[in-house]
Amino acid sequence: MAGNRIAVIGASGYGGMQTLRLLHDHPRFSVTFLGGERSSGRRWSELVPFLPLSQDLVIRRPEPEAIAAAADLAVLSLPNGLAAGMVPELIDRGVKVVDLSADYRYRSLDQWKEVYASEAASHRRDDGALCSEATYGLVEWEASAIAKARLVAAPGCFPTASLLALLPFLKQGLVEPNGIVIDAKTGSSGGGRAAKENLLLAEASEAVAPYGVVGHRHTSEIEQLAGKVAGQPIRLQFTPHLMPMVRGLLATVYARLRDPGLTAEDCTTLLKAAYRHSDSVEVLPVGTYPSTKWVRQTNRCLLSVQVDQRTGQLIVMSAVDNLIKGQAGQGVQCLNLMADLDAGTGLPLVPFYP
Amino acid sequence: MAGNRIAVIGASGYGGMQTLRLLHDHPRFSVTFLGGERSSGRRWSELVPFLPLSQDLVIRRPEPEAIAAAADLAVLSLPNGLAAGMVPELIDRGVKVVDLSADYRYRSLDQWKEVYASEAASHRRDDGALCSEATYGLVEWEASAIAKARLVAAPGCFPTASLLALLPFLKQGLVEPNGIVIDAKTGSSGGGRAAKENLLLAEASEAVAPYGVVGHRHTSEIEQLAGKVAGQPIRLQFTPHLMPMVRGLLATVYARLRDPGLTAEDCTTLLKAAYRHSDSVEVLPVGTYPSTKWVRQTNRCLLSVQVDQRTGQLIVMSAVDNLIKGQAGQGVQCLNLMADLDAGTGLPLVPFYP
Amino acid sequence: MAGNRIAVIGASGYGGMQTLRLLHDHPRFSVTFLGGERSSGRRWSELVPFLPLSQDLVIRRPEPEAIAAAADLAVLSLPNGLAAGMVPELIDRGVKVVDLSADYRYRSLDQWKEVYASEAASHRRDDGALCSEATYGLVEWEASAIAKARLVAAPGCFPTASLLALLPFLKQGLVEPNGIVIDAKTGSSGGGRAAKENLLLAEASEAVAPYGVVGHRHTSEIEQLAGKVAGQPIRLQFTPHLMPMVRGLLATVYARLRDPGLTAEDCTTLLKAAYRHSDSVEVLPVGTYPSTKWVRQTNRCLLSVQVDQRTGQLIVMSAVDNLIKGQAGQGVQCLNLMADLDAGTGLPLVPFYP
Amino acid sequence: MAGNRIAVIGASGYGGMQTLRLLHDHPRFSVTFLGGERSSGRRWSELVPFLPLSQDLVIRRPEPEAIAAAADLAVLSLPNGLAAGMVPELIDRGVKVVDLSADYRYRSLDQWKEVYASEAASHRRDDGALCSEATYGLVEWEASAIAKARLVAAPGCFPTASLLALLPFLKQGLVEPNGIVIDAKTGSSGGGRAAKENLLLAEASEAVAPYGVVGHRHTSEIEQLAGKVAGQPIRLQFTPHLMPMVRGLLATVYARLRDPGLTAEDCTTLLKAAYRHSDSVEVLPVGTYPSTKWVRQTNRCLLSVQVDQRTGQLIVMSAVDNLIKGQAGQGVQCLNLMADLDAGTGLPLVPFYP
Repeated sequence: MAGNRIAVIGASGYGGMQTLRLLHDHPRFSVTFLGGERSSGRRWSELVPFLPLSQDLVIRRPEPEAIAAAADLAVLSLPNGLAAGMVPELIDRGVKVVDLSADYRYRSLDQWKEVYASEAASHRRDDGALCSEATYGLVEWEASAIAKARLVAAPGCFPTASLLALLPFLKQGLVEPNGIVIDAKTGSSGGGRAAKENLLLAEASEAVAPYGVVGHRHTSEIEQLAGKVAGQPIRLQFTPHLMPMVRGLLATVYARLRDPGLTAEDCTTLLKAAYRHSDSVEVLPVGTYPSTKWVRQTNRCLLSVQVDQRTGQLIVMSAVDNLIKGQAGQGVQCLNLMADLDAGTGLPLVPFYP
Repeated sequence: MAGNRIAVIGASGYGGMQTLRLLHDHPRFSVTFLGGERSSGRRWSELVPFLPLSQDLVIRRPEPEAIAAAADLAVLSLPNGLAAGMVPELIDRGVKVVDLSADYRYRSLDQWKEVYASEAASHRRDDGALCSEATYGLVEWEASAIAKARLVAAPGCFPTASLLALLPFLKQGLVEPNGIVIDAKTGSSGGGRAAKENLLLAEASEAVAPYGVVGHRHTSEIEQLAGKVAGQPIRLQFTPHLMPMVRGLLATVYARLRDPGLTAEDCTTLLKAAYRHSDSVEVLPVGTYPSTKWVRQTNRCLLSVQVDQRTGQLIVMSAVDNLIKGQAGQGVQCLNLMADLDAGTGLPLVPFYP
Repeated sequence: MAGNRIAVIGASGYGGMQTLRLLHDHPRFSVTFLGGERSSGRRWSELVPFLPLSQDLVIRRPEPEAIAAAADLAVLSLPNGLAAGMVPELIDRGVKVVDLSADYRYRSLDQWKEVYASEAASHRRDDGALCSEATYGLVEWEASAIAKARLVAAPGCFPTASLLALLPFLKQGLVEPNGIVIDAKTGSSGGGRAAKENLLLAEASEAVAPYGVVGHRHTSEIEQLAGKVAGQPIRLQFTPHLMPMVRGLLATVYARLRDPGLTAEDCTTLLKAAYRHSDSVEVLPVGTYPSTKWVRQTNRCLLSVQVDQRTGQLIVMSAVDNLIKGQAGQGVQCLNLMADLDAGTGLPLVPFYP
Repeated sequence: MAGNRIAVIGASGYGGMQTLRLLHDHPRFSVTFLGGERSSGRRWSELVPFLPLSQDLVIRRPEPEAIAAAADLAVLSLPNGLAAGMVPELIDRGVKVVDLSADYRYRSLDQWKEVYASEAASHRRDDGALCSEATYGLVEWEASAIAKARLVAAPGCFPTASLLALLPFLKQGLVEPNGIVIDAKTGSSGGGRAAKENLLLAEASEAVAPYGVVGHRHTSEIEQLAGKVAGQPIRLQFTPHLMPMVRGLLATVYARLRDPGLTAEDCTTLLKAAYRHSDSVEVLPVGTYPSTKWVRQTNRCLLSVQVDQRTGQLIVMSAVDNLIKGQAGQGVQCLNLMADLDAGTGLPLVPFYP
């Protein structure tokens, strides 16, 4: 029987807080370890008085030995480069890990070192074998591998929304592999809880701007799984934009149809078929376009397709809550699978509106 | 000598209010007629107590005779279909017109009737000759024609931002005419001041969503001038998105370079050259990306270019204030040219930040 | 045994939608009737595609006979004046009612006619007996009456936050009955879902303003229960302000202490004692002040007290989600009590943050 | 003849940026020195690319000698405690100073040391004589003293809005000196540009909360001038609240009328008389309440009065832009007076709406 004691490491950032909030409503898991460096020794209710948890644990330093004694599974919500310093020891001690950082998202450690060069410069790593072993936690595409994994790398928020939109078409070979454009829009909580000038309300409110144009790190992450599913290398254009809102992420994906006769209805049917077993992905009727507000504080991805017969372009719109389906919720889906539960166990699917 | 008495028709919507606000600071023009149907007979200060103007005029019914007696030039800020009921009579009486609606943006009345079919159904028009005569008021590309025009159709907000980004590359033949994608983001003031459920703060706040996907009316407006400048028909993808903010519009334009050797620096140089005489368009250094906040309440368009050598894509980012350079400010630029003034006379270029 | 079939009338406004959303998670109630005039005949999923409910009911015209056949309890979320046209017939047919409007908030029909004069002018009422019978649904103060009631008038959002803060001090006679000031701040969803110019994002965003200064209708509602609990008439100052946000309401309550020696700690102890049996009300430690964000999408009221020894003023801060504890959630608490359940059954208490 | 060369010290924070933006439009002043510690050596256009100034100066270390050589007047926009380290030397060298910090707002250095105890602990000061000499720069109440001053302490944003509302009534002895309540609401730009977690968009958006309840530093600043004008000590209640918006500040001021027969019209007449010579203060008609949006990016204060005959309370509402009339704009008014210009020279009074 799979264990159900969960450790959450990095509990006071948005990823950790959101994981704890979701686990608070979970019917099977209980949180038995809260780990944090700076906040160790303090009680949760002191640290985050507005988010009362069933058990008011004391934050502890994240020692692998202590974690292994207290928990069966661990969720790591740490800055890139830090998880890799802890994961090998946890795995050795039999703790299964869901890592929310980028440390194990690439099969190749060398690629990680190239894409995350600044982190690689300050964090030594030689855990290439674990990189190869780790499963990429895009639940709707890797469920059976996740269920058997010791180590799951939860996808980034942009890759989640983008890949769920794109993969069914790549898999069926319905779109040209070249010329794909992903124009993505995210709320500012994606930048984390550490104070940064550009994320101040005074700066980010009443403002829309692109960033990381050409070469944003999530590009290669998207391309890795896209290429695997397409069966050929994919090079695409990915441009993130910062939105004046807290939560929510919309990816607008443009690709050229190989068969110009395909209609929006055809493509909608295809998407529905692809996700017919996935509670977390819903395909909207043709002509209904997703708002990020419709998935706020849910683990749902809303998809909608449109086709322009004049240009032969397919447009797939994909909305998620960046902190839930784009991060902590997908992490809990992975935990569920690793504990032999249904992926969606305990996760919210209906928003509070407005 | 050109006259400097201005009539503003449709004064209490955002387009009219913004025109009046800009003219308030203008060194040469004076507003001599305020026209409105529903508000006629009321004093401006009663109607809009928070925007005191130098002269507190009474709103009058927009009778062409009365307008012609009071003004040399008129700015019309009316719903689509209504301007065309008034423009012929104004022109006949010697009043030069800047129309902020879509009524004269197409050279062909038939195209207008097709694109604006619902308006065409309720507003009879047989002013095809005026459609052919009207000048499209994209100031940086049509300045000399505007200066001589009796009737100028001010461009839409999306076409303004998109065309300023795209035209220099189309003119030089540097990008493929097919496969162009314009992903645009606008603040909610673009939807006007009339109350609509989807524009309520409770609905539009904390929400990002596409609308008008495939076939938005501004598509054909963009394609008209793009095709003229390119010297060949252009069919492109244009997708608008509603942002949770009041003002500001960002167009992210994707096009494939014909010459894969061109760098972002090359393209920046080209853009700078194209707009070297235009105070309203500024090209940012490579790697600096425009925020809509940087152009808030100014008549400036900020452009930035990036090139992805891996994919051969050109990305041009273009930010404007949708109510100023995207509407009323460009209207005032047209008035300036029609009155033999510098296009930028009296218009703000520097934002109040933050 | 109490019945558990619920009718929701006025389902597509914010009050109705929020009630349905809360009942969606309820372990004991099931929604068996959706009533609406304009939307009758349409399926819920067509009307509100983004809020999928367990049962996809068809909206029906709210005929009392049909409601009584389908449901044991009804929640009415209708404009003021309309509920009173339906309640007597529902009560006659044995349906217990929770009314979210103001129609039964006053013991005296005459007072309602005075305060809601415009509604009274267009809606005839002679149900004075029901007004006297109805229970005011402030759960923490009227629980036993609610449990026995046939008709409950759920309090307004401002009265809920204000009274929870003020009543314990009035009951103990600790503050002067004169000179009380309630300065309240609410998100724009309090204005409802019907489109109004002043609630547009373009108007209400980046704006803070008072409204209804002196004589806002909620003043008399607050004074009614305050006077009853104090045992003497209370005349107080209540000023609402509109905030640039969707949800949330903060009341800052100022009153003079009779005993200047009381400390903030004393007052906190008193509040904690007053609400020791109420899961929905939490008293924060001295020096921790509530943010509306801490109660977003929960049925919780957060209170905090401060005392200024220099001025002898008591300051009580009270934060609720205006649509949940301030409206629909409190309505569900009433339903729970009327169905012999714990008041908090099925209601969320922990926010998703941020 | 007064000099017109201005130095701005602390140019890249909001106070400095806003001062520079206002001076950019000024017809008589020119900025001849930009001072900053961390940014010294860098060109303005590198530092703030989105706010192009007429002269693209290089930021210099703020050495008094260099400032005195370059400028006649200096605006200091520095953290509390730092200005006092520079002001004596500037005054000695004949540079007149407008200080935007709190360092010279109290006549008594001892009071400053008490109220700003943490700053006093790290910054030695023995400039008590300058504290006594400094003029409090509330322009509408201290104009003649400002015109003759060598050193002006520009008021805080809350004191500006509060005092403009309250002083006319205190001066005429129309309100009780006890029991005054000021409930104030401010946008997040009041917290400055330095990154702080609580001012992140993700934290401060969709949130309203009080802070500094009882004993906020601006209380004593308000009381100082209120007491002087009233001719007796004033002890009042001041509670600031953080709003989810960038700019704008509203103070809602409650006071008991001595003469219960006074009407809102009477009080409005009184306010209009008090400010009849002040372009920057406008009194709205009874029943029209100010929105912070109506003064955005202007140097105007909007006042409105209401009276509750039932309770004898006077309510004065006061809206300013916290960065302009609440800070930099009032600073420029002071500069104007010190340079023998009209106080309002070069300052904007009409907002861009919406």
